[in-house]
Amino acid sequence: MSIRRSGGRPHVVVVGAGFGGLATVKGLRHADVDVILVDRHNYHLFQPLLYQVASALLDPSDIAHPVRSILRSVPNCDFRLATVTGVDLEQRIVRTTTGDLGYDHLVLATGSATSYFGNQALAGRAYGLKDLGEALALRARVLDVFEQASRTTSPDERRALLTFVIVGAGPTGVEYAGALSELVHHVLKRDFPDIDVSGVDIVLVEAVRTVLSSFAAGLGRRAEAALRRKGVRILFDHLVSEVRDGEVVFASGDRLAAATMIWTAGVSGEAPGGMEGVERAAQGRIRVSPSSLELTGHPAVYAVGDVAACAGPGGRPLPMVAPVAIQQGEQVARVIAARTRGEPDPPSFHYRDRGSMATVGRNVAVAQIGPLRLSGLIGWMAWLFVHLMSLVSFRNRLLVLIGWAWNYVFYDRPVRLIVSPTPPSEIAGGGPTLP
Amino acid sequence: MSIRRSGGRPHVVVVGAGFGGLATVKGLRHADVDVILVDRHNYHLFQPLLYQVASALLDPSDIAHPVRSILRSVPNCDFRLATVTGVDLEQRIVRTTTGDLGYDHLVLATGSATSYFGNQALAGRAYGLKDLGEALALRARVLDVFEQASRTTSPDERRALLTFVIVGAGPTGVEYAGALSELVHHVLKRDFPDIDVSGVDIVLVEAVRTVLSSFAAGLGRRAEAALRRKGVRILFDHLVSEVRDGEVVFASGDRLAAATMIWTAGVSGEAPGGMEGVERAAQGRIRVSPSSLELTGHPAVYAVGDVAACAGPGGRPLPMVAPVAIQQGEQVARVIAARTRGEPDPPSFHYRDRGSMATVGRNVAVAQIGPLRLSGLIGWMAWLFVHLMSLVSFRNRLLVLIGWAWNYVFYDRPVRLIVSPTPPSEIAGGGPTLP
Repeated sequence: MSIRRSGGRPHVVVVGAGFGGLATVKGLRHADVDVILVDRHNYHLFQPLLYQVASALLDPSDIAHPVRSILRSVPNCDFRLATVTGVDLEQRIVRTTTGDLGYDHLVLATGSATSYFGNQALAGRAYGLKDLGEALALRARVLDVFEQASRTTSPDERRALLTFVIVGAGPTGVEYAGALSELVHHVLKRDFPDIDVSGVDIVLVEAVRTVLSSFAAGLGRRAEAALRRKGVRILFDHLVSEVRDGEVVFASGDRLAAATMIWTAGVSGEAPGGMEGVERAAQGRIRVSPSSLELTGHPAVYAVGDVAACAGPGGRPLPMVAPVAIQQGEQVARVIAARTRGEPDPPSFHYRDRGSMATVGRNVAVAQIGPLRLSGLIGWMAWLFVHLMSLVSFRNRLLVLIGWAWNYVFYDRPVRLIVSPTPPSEIAGGGPTLP
Repeated sequence: MSIRRSGGRPHVVVVGAGFGGLATVKGLRHADVDVILVDRHNYHLFQPLLYQVASALLDPSDIAHPVRSILRSVPNCDFRLATVTGVDLEQRIVRTTTGDLGYDHLVLATGSATSYFGNQALAGRAYGLKDLGEALALRARVLDVFEQASRTTSPDERRALLTFVIVGAGPTGVEYAGALSELVHHVLKRDFPDIDVSGVDIVLVEAVRTVLSSFAAGLGRRAEAALRRKGVRILFDHLVSEVRDGEVVFASGDRLAAATMIWTAGVSGEAPGGMEGVERAAQGRIRVSPSSLELTGHPAVYAVGDVAACAGPGGRPLPMVAPVAIQQGEQVARVIAARTRGEPDPPSFHYRDRGSMATVGRNVAVAQIGPLRLSGLIGWMAWLFVHLMSLVSFRNRLLVLIGWAWNYVFYDRPVRLIVSPTPPSEIAGGGPTLP
């Protein structure tokens, strides 16, 4: 246990090494503070490309970058690999699995997690697509059901094995549906000559009547048409109520035999424990002031990104996207730096919306950038460029570019591996840890 | 259950998609037989570079290639993802976790596994380095003990956490010791500015008085000197007798506080069950005839590679290396093809030794190719070239080359990720499988 708040420079604890946490830490690089960045993983994940790991196109290391490597250029920041178990807002202590951390300023950049709306049966049977572990499990699952389908002699079982239900037609659901279709029709078709891939059923389930409802209506319709051309079946106005072994049950009572369900329909802000008395908005997000991004009644405790509910234009909370997290992290860094110098707070936070994009596959993406609406090949090239340039390092950019070029030229998705670490503790119980 | 032997073309079952199994399958491409290749993984692993995955230099997909992708050019071969649970030599049936396979010809290319000489405590606490799962677990372990060392306030605990005991100074032990030293001194040193890496103790333990005892004596001494220059401590004439939590105990009674032990000192042939009556040589390898590579008393059952004990020049069994497996696989394919055509067996198997190589790190490798002895930079360049050219695909070659160039120029080992798949069954028990 090491409580770091002990006179001297103010101590800033930043929880979460996603877009928001990293922006905060980098923004504080020249401030007269000591920063500790806490994350339960030792890498920063470029989440917008996670679905490409899940569809066997990219390697984990193409989109995940070691946090310590990023922090080499931030001398006043230490990293702590730990899971935050709670926050004591009275004592100003963050409790973690590897000891307590005192703070003068606390920045919560804990992001969001897949939400099953409290349905535990759903949580135990659906594949999420929010972190690297989930993406690797989904990649292995898709490959494994094809292996099972190649062995079975029962047509019913084969049909269920080759039915993939993707719930939620937001960007993640749409992008994964397109990528899965390409994996099946360009690659697995050749890997499994015994399987007739025209029998593969990729079903995108959406509660409302549109795909990409956060986009302009015309772009949603274009994405919808592109998905249909790829053979994706879209079920509008459908709600999933239950998942059993090999079966998805809809609220209407209809059933669909499907071995694999991917859930992209709900996310909720992931605040640590000890936040019970704190004001929440929809989706469990912590309400913050639009000026300093502080929690009401808790000065010097800030929240940024998906976990924060910050009212945008029209009073609606800003969306859970990377640019919001990055701009909010920069704002919190400005606020803390100003306060450390005894200066007044910087101007209030104002989100600059640079637009949104989603890709449906080869040559097809939709993008809205200010008044501009792009789709088709132009949208796709804009999508490629923006995502490539946003990656953390030159190495990431180079390898992702090679991966994309490889896929584009050879219609190949090379990372079709079913693999897990096997530590010795699995062999004989009792891992090799120190007493 | 599908027994495939049913008249028509002879059925060949090949167990294992390593070097030996793939050579057999490819050699039978134009033979008038139906082949089934069985492996418990869906990829072929280029094992000679496995230590580079374990030392955070290469991604799994750089050295693992989907079996089904390789088999696209072998139309008479099906793949079966399954673990072989036994062989019924009387009934000529291979039993697997996904059904039985009848055979007319059976080729065992099951390779070898880490052997702890029956010491279960050792097996439960030591890290092996024979398959991809083990390499990923070891990579995560090394990164995790550095994280632990950065947090601890006890100097004794830190010293133990930063002590790595590598048992066995054969090629795997030597190559991993050199790679681990470079990971520590070039990369982790910068990731963990709080840790004094001069306190990191990499200890290579060997029962005899030489490293690389299978190489010419002069080359072993050069490798030894190179390791010492890298700060690797070598303990000759030492036997490990026990491993406890955080402590390695030697046969002499000496103890060494070390949180991590890597075991490369023993391998044994990995034959399936049902082989009890079959003649074995040292290390559990199956004895085969040097002409047809068949098991004594079991015609049409062949063994190739690490699992086979085939007498070479001087009567000693051939070493467990990829070229032996490849050449034996090609021989078995020739034997089966000839017998299928009703022709006499091809000439007896004769191993062409193309040499051995091992690298100790940047710019240093040793190689013996016929009468040629290479070391230092020349040896290293020969090592690079041979390994690069042996990789399965152009993509593997390209990505490995980029990985190596990146490491060489930037002294970086970019794949420093602690990550595991997290399937939904871990969240709520009971995975999403069909009934």
